[in-house]
Amino acid sequence: MNKRGFASDNNAGVHPLIMQALNDVNNGHTVGYGGDVYTQDCLNLFKKEFGEETETFFVYNGTGANIIALQAMARPYEAVICAHTAHINVDECGAPEKQTGCKLIDIWSPDGKLTPELIEPYLTGGGVEHHVQPKVISITQSTEMGTLYSLLELKALCSWAHDRGLLVHMDGARLSNAAAALNCSMAETSANAGVDVLSLGGTKNGMMFGEAVVVFNKDLSNGLKFIRKQSAQLHSKMRFISAQFNAFFTNELWRLNALHANKMAQKLAKEASKVPGVSITQKVEANGVFAIIPKQWIETLKEQYFFYTWDENRSEVRWMTAFDTTDEDIEGFTKLLREIAKKDTN
Amino acid sequence: MNKRGFASDNNAGVHPLIMQALNDVNNGHTVGYGGDVYTQDCLNLFKKEFGEETETFFVYNGTGANIIALQAMARPYEAVICAHTAHINVDECGAPEKQTGCKLIDIWSPDGKLTPELIEPYLTGGGVEHHVQPKVISITQSTEMGTLYSLLELKALCSWAHDRGLLVHMDGARLSNAAAALNCSMAETSANAGVDVLSLGGTKNGMMFGEAVVVFNKDLSNGLKFIRKQSAQLHSKMRFISAQFNAFFTNELWRLNALHANKMAQKLAKEASKVPGVSITQKVEANGVFAIIPKQWIETLKEQYFFYTWDENRSEVRWMTAFDTTDEDIEGFTKLLREIAKKDTN
Amino acid sequence: MNKRGFASDNNAGVHPLIMQALNDVNNGHTVGYGGDVYTQDCLNLFKKEFGEETETFFVYNGTGANIIALQAMARPYEAVICAHTAHINVDECGAPEKQTGCKLIDIWSPDGKLTPELIEPYLTGGGVEHHVQPKVISITQSTEMGTLYSLLELKALCSWAHDRGLLVHMDGARLSNAAAALNCSMAETSANAGVDVLSLGGTKNGMMFGEAVVVFNKDLSNGLKFIRKQSAQLHSKMRFISAQFNAFFTNELWRLNALHANKMAQKLAKEASKVPGVSITQKVEANGVFAIIPKQWIETLKEQYFFYTWDENRSEVRWMTAFDTTDEDIEGFTKLLREIAKKDTN
Amino acid sequence: MNKRGFASDNNAGVHPLIMQALNDVNNGHTVGYGGDVYTQDCLNLFKKEFGEETETFFVYNGTGANIIALQAMARPYEAVICAHTAHINVDECGAPEKQTGCKLIDIWSPDGKLTPELIEPYLTGGGVEHHVQPKVISITQSTEMGTLYSLLELKALCSWAHDRGLLVHMDGARLSNAAAALNCSMAETSANAGVDVLSLGGTKNGMMFGEAVVVFNKDLSNGLKFIRKQSAQLHSKMRFISAQFNAFFTNELWRLNALHANKMAQKLAKEASKVPGVSITQKVEANGVFAIIPKQWIETLKEQYFFYTWDENRSEVRWMTAFDTTDEDIEGFTKLLREIAKKDTN
Repeated sequence: MNKRGFASDNNAGVHPLIMQALNDVNNGHTVGYGGDVYTQDCLNLFKKEFGEETETFFVYNGTGANIIALQAMARPYEAVICAHTAHINVDECGAPEKQTGCKLIDIWSPDGKLTPELIEPYLTGGGVEHHVQPKVISITQSTEMGTLYSLLELKALCSWAHDRGLLVHMDGARLSNAAAALNCSMAETSANAGVDVLSLGGTKNGMMFGEAVVVFNKDLSNGLKFIRKQSAQLHSKMRFISAQFNAFFTNELWRLNALHANKMAQKLAKEASKVPGVSITQKVEANGVFAIIPKQWIETLKEQYFFYTWDENRSEVRWMTAFDTTDEDIEGFTKLLREIAKKDTN
Repeated sequence: MNKRGFASDNNAGVHPLIMQALNDVNNGHTVGYGGDVYTQDCLNLFKKEFGEETETFFVYNGTGANIIALQAMARPYEAVICAHTAHINVDECGAPEKQTGCKLIDIWSPDGKLTPELIEPYLTGGGVEHHVQPKVISITQSTEMGTLYSLLELKALCSWAHDRGLLVHMDGARLSNAAAALNCSMAETSANAGVDVLSLGGTKNGMMFGEAVVVFNKDLSNGLKFIRKQSAQLHSKMRFISAQFNAFFTNELWRLNALHANKMAQKLAKEASKVPGVSITQKVEANGVFAIIPKQWIETLKEQYFFYTWDENRSEVRWMTAFDTTDEDIEGFTKLLREIAKKDTN
Repeated sequence: MNKRGFASDNNAGVHPLIMQALNDVNNGHTVGYGGDVYTQDCLNLFKKEFGEETETFFVYNGTGANIIALQAMARPYEAVICAHTAHINVDECGAPEKQTGCKLIDIWSPDGKLTPELIEPYLTGGGVEHHVQPKVISITQSTEMGTLYSLLELKALCSWAHDRGLLVHMDGARLSNAAAALNCSMAETSANAGVDVLSLGGTKNGMMFGEAVVVFNKDLSNGLKFIRKQSAQLHSKMRFISAQFNAFFTNELWRLNALHANKMAQKLAKEASKVPGVSITQKVEANGVFAIIPKQWIETLKEQYFFYTWDENRSEVRWMTAFDTTDEDIEGFTKLLREIAKKDTN
Repeated sequence: MNKRGFASDNNAGVHPLIMQALNDVNNGHTVGYGGDVYTQDCLNLFKKEFGEETETFFVYNGTGANIIALQAMARPYEAVICAHTAHINVDECGAPEKQTGCKLIDIWSPDGKLTPELIEPYLTGGGVEHHVQPKVISITQSTEMGTLYSLLELKALCSWAHDRGLLVHMDGARLSNAAAALNCSMAETSANAGVDVLSLGGTKNGMMFGEAVVVFNKDLSNGLKFIRKQSAQLHSKMRFISAQFNAFFTNELWRLNALHANKMAQKLAKEASKVPGVSITQKVEANGVFAIIPKQWIETLKEQYFFYTWDENRSEVRWMTAFDTTDEDIEGFTKLLREIAKKDTN
C-alpha cells in the first residue's frame, strides 16, 4: 500500500478522466511532434481559452517550460528578476542560469510575491555595460508560498513593468489553483492581466506529464519551436500530451480539481491551526499550507505522511494538497498532529 | 481515421501491455522524483539486465538522454566524435553543442557506422590548447541508417577507443532493434562490449514517453542526477516512466516488439526492391529501409502514407517500421509503389 | 589635457618601469602563446612567489581570470557563493553565469567580506538534486568596499570551507593593495592562507593589460589551459604580458605602487571626513574610500574629477586612488569638496 | 638571442610606430572602458575608413572578436557555416560553440574559400525544428590557406547569402594582407562587398594586442557592448588599444606592413619551390606559404626556424611571413632548405 501525504501535488496520480483520454487516443498511427489532429485541436482550444493570438508549445515539465520561456524573453546579458522563493531560483538546480546564460536577480519577499516597490531598487545600471540589464520579471501564480496575486495586483505589476520596458513571465505551475481561488478564467489571471509569456502547469493538477509555454506577446514566439527542440523538450508522441490537455480543459476539469485541492488546504489549515504549537506562516489562498512546528515532531509525522521541511533553520514545513486529497487524509493527519502535540506537552 | 505510415517508429502508439502498466500504477500517492517503489524495482531490473554496477537515470526523451550522457562524459573543451548521420549531429537542433558546450566532430560515414580507420585521422592536436580535445566517440546502435555494428565490431571499437583515452557513448534509441537482430541481450551489445554510457530508448519501441541514461563506467555517474535536473529532464511523477520500463522488460516485450518491426522492414525492403525504379541504398539490418526513388513519386506516395525524404539532393527516402506495423501496411504500400511505378513507365 | 580623478585605479596609465619593460622585450621574434623565455622566466617567478606547486596562466583581464578560475572549480550545477558586492556578482555583466553555467549565491555583507556565520545558512540542500550544490566561496582581497580580510580571518574561512568540501577562490584584482596594507607577501594572503585559486590583478596596479589565474590546488589546474583558450583569454604575443609581470615583481614594484595608493586613500579619507556633510561609510584599509555625500554635490564634483556613484539610492560615492595619485590630486579634490560644502551651507 | 621563424605573423614583435604610440598616450589619467579621447578619435577613424554607419568595438584578440560577432549574429539554434579550415572551426578550442551555443557547419574547401556551390547543399532543413537553421556564413579574408577572395567573388557570395536570408561574417585577422594584395581599401573588401560584421585583426600585423568587431549592418550592433563585456573582452585601459589602431591607420601603416609581409611570402615561395622535394600546395596570395616537404626534413628545419606542421598526415607545413620578416630570413631559410634537400638526395 502506498503512503499518502502532503509532500507535493505531484505525489498524486493521474485523474481518471485524463487517464481515459490517454487510453482513447492510443489508436494507431499519427504524425509525430505535434502534426496530429489531437494537438491541432488542443492548440485551438488554447486560443479559445487565452485569445486568438496565443501561440502554445507543449513541453514535458515545469522547469522545461520556464527555461524555454526565459530563453525567448531574454538575451544572456539581460537579467530575470524573481522572488527569492521562486521555483526558478531555488528548485531547478540552476537550470535557468545554465540554459539561458542570464543572471537571476532574486528579491527577498515575505510571501512569495513581488511588487513594484520591492523591484524598484534593483532597476539600476540601465544601459551600463558592466551590469546585467533587467529585462524579465518572473512571478508565480499561485506562488510557491501558497499565496495569490489579485487581478488588480497583477495588472498593476504588468503595467508598471511594461512602462519600464520589462517583460512579465508567469510561472503558472499552479495557475489552476489561482484561477479557481480567484473565481476567474485562466486568461483573466494571465493574458488579460498583461502577462507576456506563461508557463502553464498540468502535472501538478492531475496530468501524467506535460506543461505548456503559452505566448501572448506575439513578438516572443518567433524561434520558440527551435528553442523547445534545442532544449530537449519536444515530445515525439505529442498526442499523449495534447490528449491530456484536451481532457484538462473539457468541462473545466482543471477548475474542479483545483477547487477541491484548495478546499482541502483550507480545511487542513483550519484544523492544524487549532493545534497548540502549530503556527501557520502564510495566508492559505491556494493549495499550500506553511507552518512552523516544533522540530521534534517532524520525524514522527513523516513516518506516516510524506511532506517536506521548507526551512530547516525556522523549522517551517510545507503541506500541499492535491486534486485527490481526501477528507480522511486531512482528518488522519490532523489527528496525528493533535496526538503528537498532546504527547509533547505532557 | 488516422493515416498510417513509415515516417518513424514514433508515429506508432503505445503498446497495450505498456498502457496497461500505466493504468495499473495509477493508484494513489507515491513519493515523487523516483523515490517510489516502482522506480526502485525498475532500477534493480536495469542492474540485472546490464550488470550490478550499472547506474540508471530515467529521462523524457532521446535528446535529453544524449545531452545528459555527453555532459557527464566531456568538458566543454573536449570533443565528441560521431558519424555525419548521427542523430546528435543532425536531428537535435544543436542541443548537444548548446547544452554541453562541446564541438561535435562529424565524420562522413557511408553506412552510419564509425570505424577506427575512419576516426584515426581526426585524432590530431592532442594536448595542444588551440584545438578541441577528442574525448567521446558517440555511436548509434542500430544506426540512423538502419545498419548494425556486430558485437565484434563494437568490442574492437571500444577497445581501440579506451586504448587512446577515449570514452564510448552509445545512442541506443533503437537498441531493442539491434539486440533483437543480433539475437543477443541488451547488455551484450552495450555494457559487455565496452560501452561507457548508453542512451536507451523506450519511446520508439512501444512506450508513451521515457528513455534512460545507463551508466556502466562508474566514474561517470557522479553528479549525473544534478545534470539531469539541471537539464530539465527529471520527471516528478516518475512512476509513470518506471512502470513503462517494467513492462518493457517483462518477458522481454522489447524484444518481441523489435523482432516484429525488424521483420516488417525485411518484408518491406524485399517487396520494394522488386519495383523497377526503387533502389535500396543501405543494408536492412534493423527496422529502417532507405531507398532512392524517382522524385516525382514522393508526393503521390505521401498522400496515402507518411514518411520522410532523407536526402533531397539524392531523392533518397526513409521508411521506418514499428512494433505495430502490419502485413497490410506493407502490402498496401508496396502495391501503391508498384502502381506508381507502372504509371510512371507508361 | 586629461582630467584626473578617482573613478578607478584603472584610469591611471602604465607605470614607467613597466612601460620600459614592454619596450625592452620588443626585440624580434619569439614563439607565441607563452613558449618564449620571458614567459618561462615569469612562470618560475610565480613559483618563487607563491610556492613550487603553483601553476600560473596569464590572461587579459580580471573578468577573464575570474571566469576561468570558476570554470576550473565548479561544474554548472554547483554554486559559487559570494558577497552581494562582489565584482563577479555586479560588475561583470553576468559573465560568470554565462560562462560557467553556475548560479551565484550572493550574500548580503555589510563590508564586502564573508564570514562562516554569514555563509552557514546558505549551505542547505546538500545532495538534493533540486538545488544547486554550493562548491566555491569566492572572496575578494582587498574587497570591492576597500576593506581587508586579516590573515587570521582568511585562514579561518579557508579552513572552515575545506572542512565542508568547499573550495576558495580569491578575486585578487587588488591583492597588491591588500598585501601592502597587511605588510605581508602575496603568498601569505592567498596560497598560505588556504586559497585554492587566485585571480591576480596587474592592470589596476600599473600594468597596461594582463592578469593571472594562479592555481595552488594542484587538482584544479588540469585542463585549465584549454579553458583559457576556449574562453578567448590566451594572448598570442604573450611576452608582452610576461614582461609586465616580470617588472611588476622586480624589487616588489607592486608593493611600492600599492603602498602609495593606500597612503593616498588614507589621506583622502582623512581630509574628506573633516568636511561637514561627508560621511565615510567603510573602513579605509586599502585604496578605496566610500562616502555618503549630499546628492546635489555630485555633479559639481564630477565636472572636475572623475569618480563613480556607488549606490544612487543612498547617494554613496566611491573614490579610488592609484599608484600615480598625487598629493596635489588629493589636495585639489578636498579643497573643492570644502568649497562645495561651504557654498551648500550658505 | 631569439630564434627567428615563420611560425606565425604573431611571432613578430610590435611595430616601432605602434610602440611609440603606446608610449605617447601613457600620460596620466583618462576615463576607462573607452570613454577617453583616443578611443573617440579612433572610433571616428573607423567610420571614415568603413562608412558613417559603422559601429566598432575593440576587443583583446581574434577569438574574442569572432565569438562576439557570432553572438550578435545568431541565436543558439542557428548555425554558422564555415570552411573546414576556418580558424573558428579548428583553432579556437571550440570557443565558438561554447560561447554562442551554435553548431558550426564546416564545409570541405580545397583552398580555404567558400562558394555558393559549396554551401548550397547544406541549406536544407529550413524551418524544420529538428535541424539547426543556417544563419551566418563566416569567411576569412585572407584565408587560413593564404588565399584570397576577389572583390567579385566577395560581392557575389554576400549577395547570394543575403538573398537567402543569411548574414556574412568576415574573419579579417589578416584583412590588411588581403587589402594590400588586392590593392584596395579595407572597406572595399568588407563593408562595400556586403559583409555584415567584420573581425578586424591588429595583432598579426604589428600591434601588441587588440582587434575590433566592426559592424556594418546596423541591426546587429544592438546589445553588442553588453556581449563584449559578458565575453570578458572589454579592456579597462582602452586608450592602449585605441592608440595602436590610431597608429595602425595613420599613413596606412597597416598597408605598408602587409605589403611587406606579402612580398616576403612571394619571395619565400619562389625560392622554396625551386628546391627539389618541395611542393607548394596553395596559391600564395597573401602572407602564407603552404608546402608539402619530406617528413624527415621537418625536425632539422625546426632546429633553426620556428614553423608549424599544418597537416601531419600529408606532411604539409605552413610558413607565415610578417611585417618584420627580412630578406636575410628568407635567404637563410631557403639556403638551409637547399642544403637539407641536397643531403637527403645523396
